[in-house]
Amino acid sequence: MSAQVAVNAVTSACKTVLASSVAKVYTTEVKTAIQKLGRPPKMVAFLANNDPAAKLYADWTAKACTDTGVDFELRQVDKEDLEDAVFQTNDDKSVDGIMIYFPVFGNRQDQYLQQIVSPAKDVEGLSHMYIQNLYHNVRYLNAENTKKSILPCTPLALVKILEYIGVYNMMLPYGNRLYGKTITIVNRSEIVGRPLAALLANDGAVVYSFDIDTVQKFTRGEGIRLRSHRVTDIHCTLEEATKMSDVVITGVPSEKYKFPVEYLKDGVICVNFSTAKNFEISVKDKASLYVPSVGKVTVMMLMRNLLRLAENGSSN
Amino acid sequence: MSAQVAVNAVTSACKTVLASSVAKVYTTEVKTAIQKLGRPPKMVAFLANNDPAAKLYADWTAKACTDTGVDFELRQVDKEDLEDAVFQTNDDKSVDGIMIYFPVFGNRQDQYLQQIVSPAKDVEGLSHMYIQNLYHNVRYLNAENTKKSILPCTPLALVKILEYIGVYNMMLPYGNRLYGKTITIVNRSEIVGRPLAALLANDGAVVYSFDIDTVQKFTRGEGIRLRSHRVTDIHCTLEEATKMSDVVITGVPSEKYKFPVEYLKDGVICVNFSTAKNFEISVKDKASLYVPSVGKVTVMMLMRNLLRLAENGSSN
Repeated sequence: MSAQVAVNAVTSACKTVLASSVAKVYTTEVKTAIQKLGRPPKMVAFLANNDPAAKLYADWTAKACTDTGVDFELRQVDKEDLEDAVFQTNDDKSVDGIMIYFPVFGNRQDQYLQQIVSPAKDVEGLSHMYIQNLYHNVRYLNAENTKKSILPCTPLALVKILEYIGVYNMMLPYGNRLYGKTITIVNRSEIVGRPLAALLANDGAVVYSFDIDTVQKFTRGEGIRLRSHRVTDIHCTLEEATKMSDVVITGVPSEKYKFPVEYLKDGVICVNFSTAKNFEISVKDKASLYVPSVGKVTVMMLMRNLLRLAENGSSN
Repeated sequence: MSAQVAVNAVTSACKTVLASSVAKVYTTEVKTAIQKLGRPPKMVAFLANNDPAAKLYADWTAKACTDTGVDFELRQVDKEDLEDAVFQTNDDKSVDGIMIYFPVFGNRQDQYLQQIVSPAKDVEGLSHMYIQNLYHNVRYLNAENTKKSILPCTPLALVKILEYIGVYNMMLPYGNRLYGKTITIVNRSEIVGRPLAALLANDGAVVYSFDIDTVQKFTRGEGIRLRSHRVTDIHCTLEEATKMSDVVITGVPSEKYKFPVEYLKDGVICVNFSTAKNFEISVKDKASLYVPSVGKVTVMMLMRNLLRLAENGSSN
C-alpha cells in the first residue's frame, strides 16, 4: 500500500494542452469557410524590419496559410516606403487582408502605422474602431447583427483556448459564458493584457489584472447586471487574487520571471501567452489543465479574421 | 441611460435548467440501447404500501417506461408476501430489472428488503456490492473493465445533471473531471447525500457535506493524488463553505427550510434534489444556473440502469 501511495505521489493529474490541438479545430473551420467562399482569400503581410524573430513568425504564418489554402504573400519593403505600400494595398480589390510585422520604427510611429491599414482589411484587429468595440462590448458592426466586429488575434486566441478547455460554460447564453469565473491576468499591455481583461470581463468573468505597479479589477458587477465591464483600481496582492482564481493567465516577456506556483488554487487552469516560460514545471502539481503557449492559435486567428473580413466584404 | 440601468437591474442573468431537458438526452440514449438489445427490457416494480406518493411515482415511472419502450409491470402485493414475490422474480429469466417502492415497513426491515433484490436485477443500485464499489471508487464489475458497476439512481441523476450543465470539464480525463471544483451538499442521507458526496469527490471535487449536526470534507487530497476519496470531520460554517463553492446542492425534505441565498458566490450553480423548494426565487440574483428539481432525470436513470443490467447479463 505504501508503494502504491509513493507511485501515485509522483504522478501528476495535470493535463497539458498544446496550442497545436486547439489550432487544429480552426484549421478545419477555416478550410470549410474557404470552400464556402469559393476562392482562396488573399493576405498580404509587410515586413519592414530585419528582426529575425519577425521573419520566423512570417515563415510560420506562410506555412499555416499554405496548409489551409490561404493565398499568402510576404512583401519586404523599406520602412520609409511602408505607408505608401499599405495605402496601395488598401485599394487593391484582389487583397482581402493586410498585416504588418512590428516593430517597424520601434516608437510611437508604429501605433500610427497600425491605423493606416483599412479596417475592411485589418486581419490583426488593431484598428481603433475594433478596439473601441471590444472595450465597449459592441460585438457587431451593423444594426442587423450580421457582421461581427474583428477581435485582435492574441486576445481572441486566448478566448478560443478558454472555450476549448471548458472554461466557457456553453450552457450559459452567448455573452455570459464566464459568469461565475474568477481570472487573474499578469500583463496589462495595450496589445494583449488589457483588451484580454476587457473581453473576459465582458463575457461575465471577474478579472484581476496585474502590471508591474498596479492592480485593476474588471467586472460587470454582481449578477453581471452591467452590459459592459467597468474597471476599478484595487489594493490586492497577487497571492490574494490567485487564491480566488479559477484561471491564471501570464504574459511576462522575461525568462527570469516565474509565477509563484504556491499561490495557485488546487485544480486551477494555467495559460501562458508569453514566449518565455512563465510557469515552472511544478505548475503541474497544482493545475488541472496547463496551456504552455498560444502562438499557433494566434496564427489561426489571423486566418479566421481574414475569412470574416472576406465574408463581411462580399455581403456588402 | 438611467432607464436602461433600471431595466437591466431587474433582469436576472440566471438560467433555469429543467430536469425534463436533461431527461430528454437519456430518453434518446435508452431508446437507442433498446434497439441495440433487440427486445423490450422488462422491469417489475413492487408496491406494498398504500402511500399515495409511491403510487404517483409508480404511475410516473410507468409513463416514462411506455414512452421509451420499456416493458413495465407494477405488482401490488401485501407487505408480508413481498419477500417471496421478489425471490420468485429474481429467478424469472423474463425479468431484467426489479424495484421496490419504499417505505414498506418503515423501519430497519426495509434495509433488509433492499438487499434481497438480486444485484443482477437491481435497477435502483442499492445492493451492498454496488454501494461499496461507489464508496471505494471501483467503477467496473470485472477485471476487463467491460461491465460498469451500477450507481444508485438519484446520486447518478445528479452526476448526469452536473455533466449536462457543464460542471464536469470534458477536457479532463474520465474520473478526474471535477478536479478544481468545490461543492457544498446540504444533506448526508445514506440514500442520496453521502453517496453523492463520495461520487463527486471520487471524480476530483472537494465536497463540503452538511447534515444537521456535523460537517465533513470529502476529497482525494491536494493534486487529487489519492485514487479514492477520504472523509474528515471539520469545523466550518455553511457560510464559509458556500463562499468557496462553485456548486451548491440541497436536499432538505422540509418546506420550511430555505438555503441562505446571501451566502452564495456570485455566478454559483445551484441544484435542489428535495421535493421541497430549498431555494427561494431570489437564488436567481446570485446563480448562473439553477436546477430546481431532479425527479425526471432519476426516473431515466432507473431505465439506464435497467439497460446496463440487461447488457451485462447478455454478455455473460
